[in-house]
Amino acid sequence: MARIIALLQADPTVGDLEANATLIATLGDAAATKGANLAVSTELVVSGYPPRDLLLQSEFIDACVKAAENITCSIPLLIGTPLPAKGRNLPGNGVLSNNGEVREVVRKQLLPTYDVFDEARYFAADARPGIARTFGGLNLGVTVCEDAWQHAGHTPIDYDADPIEQIAEWVRQGVELDATVNLSASPFHVEKLSTRVEVARCAAKTLQHPFLLANQVGANDDLLFDGRSLAAWPDGRIVMAPAWQEGALLIDIDDYSRAQWLGKGEISHISPGDDPISADDDLLQAVVSGLSGYCAKAGLKKIVLGLSGGIDSAVAACVASAAVGPENVTGIAMPSKHSSDHSLADAQATAAALGIEFLTISIEDLHENATTLLADLLASGDKVAGENIQARLRGLIVMAHANANHAMAIATGNKSELAQGYCTLYGDMAGGYAPLGDLYKMEVYDLAKQFNQRMNPPPINHSTMTKPPSAELAPDQRDDDKLPPYPILDEILRLHIEYRLEASEIVAKGFDANVVADVLVRLAQNEHKRWQMPPAPRVSRRAFGQGWRQPLAAKHAWRRSI
Amino acid sequence: MARIIALLQADPTVGDLEANATLIATLGDAAATKGANLAVSTELVVSGYPPRDLLLQSEFIDACVKAAENITCSIPLLIGTPLPAKGRNLPGNGVLSNNGEVREVVRKQLLPTYDVFDEARYFAADARPGIARTFGGLNLGVTVCEDAWQHAGHTPIDYDADPIEQIAEWVRQGVELDATVNLSASPFHVEKLSTRVEVARCAAKTLQHPFLLANQVGANDDLLFDGRSLAAWPDGRIVMAPAWQEGALLIDIDDYSRAQWLGKGEISHISPGDDPISADDDLLQAVVSGLSGYCAKAGLKKIVLGLSGGIDSAVAACVASAAVGPENVTGIAMPSKHSSDHSLADAQATAAALGIEFLTISIEDLHENATTLLADLLASGDKVAGENIQARLRGLIVMAHANANHAMAIATGNKSELAQGYCTLYGDMAGGYAPLGDLYKMEVYDLAKQFNQRMNPPPINHSTMTKPPSAELAPDQRDDDKLPPYPILDEILRLHIEYRLEASEIVAKGFDANVVADVLVRLAQNEHKRWQMPPAPRVSRRAFGQGWRQPLAAKHAWRRSI
Repeated sequence: MARIIALLQADPTVGDLEANATLIATLGDAAATKGANLAVSTELVVSGYPPRDLLLQSEFIDACVKAAENITCSIPLLIGTPLPAKGRNLPGNGVLSNNGEVREVVRKQLLPTYDVFDEARYFAADARPGIARTFGGLNLGVTVCEDAWQHAGHTPIDYDADPIEQIAEWVRQGVELDATVNLSASPFHVEKLSTRVEVARCAAKTLQHPFLLANQVGANDDLLFDGRSLAAWPDGRIVMAPAWQEGALLIDIDDYSRAQWLGKGEISHISPGDDPISADDDLLQAVVSGLSGYCAKAGLKKIVLGLSGGIDSAVAACVASAAVGPENVTGIAMPSKHSSDHSLADAQATAAALGIEFLTISIEDLHENATTLLADLLASGDKVAGENIQARLRGLIVMAHANANHAMAIATGNKSELAQGYCTLYGDMAGGYAPLGDLYKMEVYDLAKQFNQRMNPPPINHSTMTKPPSAELAPDQRDDDKLPPYPILDEILRLHIEYRLEASEIVAKGFDANVVADVLVRLAQNEHKRWQMPPAPRVSRRAFGQGWRQPLAAKHAWRRSI
Repeated sequence: MARIIALLQADPTVGDLEANATLIATLGDAAATKGANLAVSTELVVSGYPPRDLLLQSEFIDACVKAAENITCSIPLLIGTPLPAKGRNLPGNGVLSNNGEVREVVRKQLLPTYDVFDEARYFAADARPGIARTFGGLNLGVTVCEDAWQHAGHTPIDYDADPIEQIAEWVRQGVELDATVNLSASPFHVEKLSTRVEVARCAAKTLQHPFLLANQVGANDDLLFDGRSLAAWPDGRIVMAPAWQEGALLIDIDDYSRAQWLGKGEISHISPGDDPISADDDLLQAVVSGLSGYCAKAGLKKIVLGLSGGIDSAVAACVASAAVGPENVTGIAMPSKHSSDHSLADAQATAAALGIEFLTISIEDLHENATTLLADLLASGDKVAGENIQARLRGLIVMAHANANHAMAIATGNKSELAQGYCTLYGDMAGGYAPLGDLYKMEVYDLAKQFNQRMNPPPINHSTMTKPPSAELAPDQRDDDKLPPYPILDEILRLHIEYRLEASEIVAKGFDANVVADVLVRLAQNEHKRWQMPPAPRVSRRAFGQGWRQPLAAKHAWRRSI
């Protein structure tokens, strides 16, 4: 008889326990009809990942367990769920087996508490891995996400335990296992795929049996999950589910060529020694998934944004259009006296190509009215005050449209300008979500090229692609009046933020010391803005927000000396 | 010879290593002139607490150690500082002894990772307490903050280790210690003082020698530290430094009556069995310290706020005035057609009594201009859009003033309305800091009464104190049109947020089930606003921000079923 394990690549909604339970049952039943012996869900699928401070409510944890227990499915399930605290300890991040009878199988041992992860805040670490015996006719080692990562050395620090090695030792002692499974909520970032594949290969090689990883897909809050559930064999072969799609991956552990995918997209087969290759449009899909997921889960159908004719808002409009459909997107051009002639035409061209609603609301009168009203105040003070008024009037108009129509405004800023504070709080930073907030400026250009290649007509015209970036808040203003050219700025930021290089190390790579110092000082001084930025889908190794929180009080202190 | 230990109650600035080092040397030298044998600093005093993600930079940690090593003082010092990682581990939260020669004494064992604390994210836990031998002629047990709390049972979960018990066991084995010291950065909240005193008494009793705790004072970011460094003797006597003041507390461990305080304010002596009593104005001092500390440390001299004539903005003006001086505060009244007659007069009365600059800028024309411009949009949509325009125009004006004058705008909202989303993003929520953001509405009234009692003339007039709260964004609007009366709302929120009571438990206390459900649903649905709120000084057991982060994607899911 074939030994077939289904990996349920689910897109749960954080907090929607009933819907998540139904989703698992539905995917499991579909897998059953294709011959699966049993099905494995993703980590914390009942609560959705990340449940954040909902985990502090025991009422919530009890409701998760009850929802997991109430799932009925035609094949046995391994279900990821929060589990109640033992005594005066924290709850567990665990797995229940449900084949009519419900049993606790394992609690996660390794609790990531770095970057976007805060698991030591919510969970107690357990001391041993789990086994599901004669479960759907199979014996399985059972691990949860990070539990498999220590073994491959892919954690920022060493944990004391290595659950993969523990299971391998049991196997050496004679415990018979058909496979080891891993319930994951392994967030996406642009360089993560090959690491995750290496983790799986490393586990399978040590265990000397197949290692199967079911990964969450979709977005919850600022976290993205690419799916790509996979199976690895000891010889290094990999079978991988498609990214950004919900579905079930059926793995015949005896024959990797017989894998099936129930859902959109296609299975990848990766030969031993080969690296997995991300799709060209992975970043584009990630950003679109982030926005569409957030809207769907927060009950938002419509999006509105300011369309300036610049590259950021044009790309944001493309993302919005792909996320919720062009019929649900409104772009508003809000020219002022400082807007260039081409701005309106460029904005209109993008809106027309996408087929989104396009409104033009000139802020010229309102701006004049406001500057007259505030003439005394503006005459003597910093001229940035006057520039910001324009950005904030635009924010006000976009928000009025959003509030009137129950739409969500999106902020169009990118990571490079957010890093430097080159943006206006309550102006262009206004919105419920910042789809490009974790993309460096040059990545925004890359996305623009991709949208233009993939869409007909191309939504972003030549003028928008090629004109020098400008906030257009003052005559002849250009971003590079104040900032280094973006290719340089992006690289300095990337080296410091993603790879944690210090100033001296960045300079050693050939960057001008004064430029590096200016960039890092501005980065430190503008943390107060980032504390108030809307959530942005995390696509880089290290995003602002959960994974980057500098002290505010240090804004003029640390970095002063560089 | 007297055995005198100085506790240096310092107010460090996060990231300002050089200034923090100088501060310790200055306080230590002052203590030396009064006969102290040695001085004990607060936890992480070199970096300031909380250093947050600066701790991820090894360059920063190395600079802290160097700054600690470079301190020269006329008496031996125990200095709290981050310490470099050992191998592939995280850094330590530790203590260096510096008496010319520098040695590592201890690394913190118990790393709080709950509420406002995230120490497991930054530090590796060590396995044993430290001893400083023949240091300034004394032998001392040395612990860091949380290390002392497990022993008294005052941690939310149990740690495996109990450092106080470990030291006590050493004493029982014959190790001779004169006292045990604790370097703390123990944040303020309204009910914490008696707990901290109990922790100290419990440690002294077990150790059978004096237990001395040096606590940070002042604000860094959203955390407040009340100081109140203290010494406890085995019989329960307590000597305590004043709150909210920098200084040095000199403890003669052989004679509690000979304690000296170098600084403003006075020492408290608390008899065995007596509870410490907070000053009446503790909450007022806390909120003022938060704002003044933030301004001082972020290099901000001036504050601007909207003055509506309502209670929140009146109290915020009092806080601002106390924090940076009335000469540095500007209040702007921005009446619209919906403003009541008394609003302007009430606002002016508060400004005049405080002696702050007062501007009146009517938004009536601008509002009319905006509503005309957006007439189509506003005619058909949700009427809240029109109401928000007024709030956002006010936000724009306050921000223009702030930007022009390099002042900081403050948001005037309170915790009750932030909890319910009864506030406007980019409108009244605009600002760099929300001084009342962790105060329930009824606490804002309490503060108003206190300011009126303490100041002459009383700054908040009868009309402001007694009129029904209203956002004045629509004709005859009142907060209680949409919200329960504040005494009820506050209590439901407090029970749920501070004490983690679930809906059913709150109802069991006599609250209406529908009211409770409405309040908790609004709380869940408005998390997206709180993700973008300015930092607020944490005065309650549980504040929004670091200690309260609900998932956004759950806004319509969990709680729907209540």
